[in-house]
Amino acid sequence: MLLQEDLKKAYSGSRVLVTGGLGFIGSNLAIRLVEMGAKVTIIDNQMPETGANEFNLEPIRAQTEVIIADVGDRSVLDGLVGRIDTIFNLAGTLSHTDSMRDPYRDLHSNCTGHMQLLDSVRDAKSSAKILYAATRAQYGRAQKLPVDENHPLISADVNGINKTSGEAYHMLYSRAYGVRTCSLRLTNTYGARHQMRHHRQGVLNWFVRRVLDGNPILVYGSGQQIRDINYVDDVVDAMLMAAGSDKTNGEIYNLGGNHVSLKALGELLVKLNGSGKVEIVPYPKDSKEVEVGDFVADTRKIESVLGWKAKVSPEEGFARTLDYYRKNQSKYW
Amino acid sequence: MLLQEDLKKAYSGSRVLVTGGLGFIGSNLAIRLVEMGAKVTIIDNQMPETGANEFNLEPIRAQTEVIIADVGDRSVLDGLVGRIDTIFNLAGTLSHTDSMRDPYRDLHSNCTGHMQLLDSVRDAKSSAKILYAATRAQYGRAQKLPVDENHPLISADVNGINKTSGEAYHMLYSRAYGVRTCSLRLTNTYGARHQMRHHRQGVLNWFVRRVLDGNPILVYGSGQQIRDINYVDDVVDAMLMAAGSDKTNGEIYNLGGNHVSLKALGELLVKLNGSGKVEIVPYPKDSKEVEVGDFVADTRKIESVLGWKAKVSPEEGFARTLDYYRKNQSKYW
Repeated sequence: MLLQEDLKKAYSGSRVLVTGGLGFIGSNLAIRLVEMGAKVTIIDNQMPETGANEFNLEPIRAQTEVIIADVGDRSVLDGLVGRIDTIFNLAGTLSHTDSMRDPYRDLHSNCTGHMQLLDSVRDAKSSAKILYAATRAQYGRAQKLPVDENHPLISADVNGINKTSGEAYHMLYSRAYGVRTCSLRLTNTYGARHQMRHHRQGVLNWFVRRVLDGNPILVYGSGQQIRDINYVDDVVDAMLMAAGSDKTNGEIYNLGGNHVSLKALGELLVKLNGSGKVEIVPYPKDSKEVEVGDFVADTRKIESVLGWKAKVSPEEGFARTLDYYRKNQSKYW
Repeated sequence: MLLQEDLKKAYSGSRVLVTGGLGFIGSNLAIRLVEMGAKVTIIDNQMPETGANEFNLEPIRAQTEVIIADVGDRSVLDGLVGRIDTIFNLAGTLSHTDSMRDPYRDLHSNCTGHMQLLDSVRDAKSSAKILYAATRAQYGRAQKLPVDENHPLISADVNGINKTSGEAYHMLYSRAYGVRTCSLRLTNTYGARHQMRHHRQGVLNWFVRRVLDGNPILVYGSGQQIRDINYVDDVVDAMLMAAGSDKTNGEIYNLGGNHVSLKALGELLVKLNGSGKVEIVPYPKDSKEVEVGDFVADTRKIESVLGWKAKVSPEEGFARTLDYYRKNQSKYW
């Protein structure tokens, strides 16, 4: 259903802002946008350990304006938003552990800055469409599977609570001021350009590093925990489609589409790598607290409204991921 | 079911902190606590226009310690929380209009400060019970009536979003760190000691002022909007009962119990006052945006767990309210 030609037509020549654009998903998105002929500006504050990496933009460095600033820096935003068609608002922190250790940094990054961005767009009377990157962590432990968008939001950490607020601000500004916003709740996303120095932003890319380093992939607990995973290119497709449609204004959509156990993922990586092993080990104390059980997203809303569906299988996605880091390891760890 | 003698036994001699204790509900609560023999400390930052009024504490001024500080001031809290049994955490802003005008003040007041209070209690390994004062504004427009605690939280303003976060922090700290917390979602509360200088913190006391001033009570729209109202003494009872029970740890409860149309309330006030009139007028622009339709709370959870039920009828409550402000008008406007 995904018509890459239609997307290209929509974004060719358009002016796009990507916040957090030096990071994992932001950089993959920016590269696709430049390939389609968009004029891309990036705002990124290069917050340590969040994944900002200048090498991520290496394929498009010459065609892209990069501004090092907070997502909410109005001295930057106010001069910018009036001439922007689409804002992919991906800035923010997303670590469970970091948010519990320093809830104030998480609050500033995920709430204050986004409010400032929304205020800037409203005050400029800009018609820019804003896509917010939310997370399935907002749901906390699933009360039943699959989890649809109306599932209660009982986050297991400060990060989930603050991401919920950030999303709610976007929805409120749509209802109260007519700012054109939408939100995608991302599941575990993996692929090229993810930071590889620590495991606090998701287990999938960390498995990739472990196997490439020749270390055993450590799977906690039973290993049977289900995750619903997306390769980054599918997420980029969803973002382009959602931001390109007025049907999504004021709406929230789940992503997902490949649910699989962590043990099976570890075994897949060993197979694709041609060597390595999976070890089932007990939960470390701080990870046990994080564990919210199985997660499967109900993605029927975005499928029915936009025709989006995850296309890249775990086999294909992890093969591409392994290939990327084999070629570019020195830039990531 | 409410046994005032049991409450008195529970709080007599206990050490209690009331944040926002110079305000409407906080001061009524503090007076009840002192009457029952509790040792009361108040933290209040006297934020302009939020309702802090030193006269509110006039009956207990000599027996009460008042600290003028932010709810989250750890230089104050850290020396205090170790010797406190119960914290009634009522500080915060609650105006729709003010939160839309200055979302950053609302965020600081309702999120940052409460996180600091929770961190202080956790770090002190204090066993203090914390009761959080939440609001039915967190629900936004009711999807069906009556509204129970599992209703989605789709707030119509920044204040509701930030109050939701503050509540979620309290629940998270219960689950993650064993801090003893509970939350009550208050509906429209009225009675003695409410500020009377502006209408931005609730319509009920504003009606009282209008009728006492000899001005028509202005009811917007059809006048048939239903509100679920509580006299402040009933709310104080609920707070004392909820904070006094370990059954409430990590739990959220609606309050409510008297649903009535705004027009009927206006007419009741005219009757009780012996003069005055109700005028049905169109919504002003900024009030129309606020209007979320009828609201009736489902209070079965708190009734079944604690045996709390609103006891004061609107007739009785507004008679007491009129009486209080007739005697003390000069202290309020």
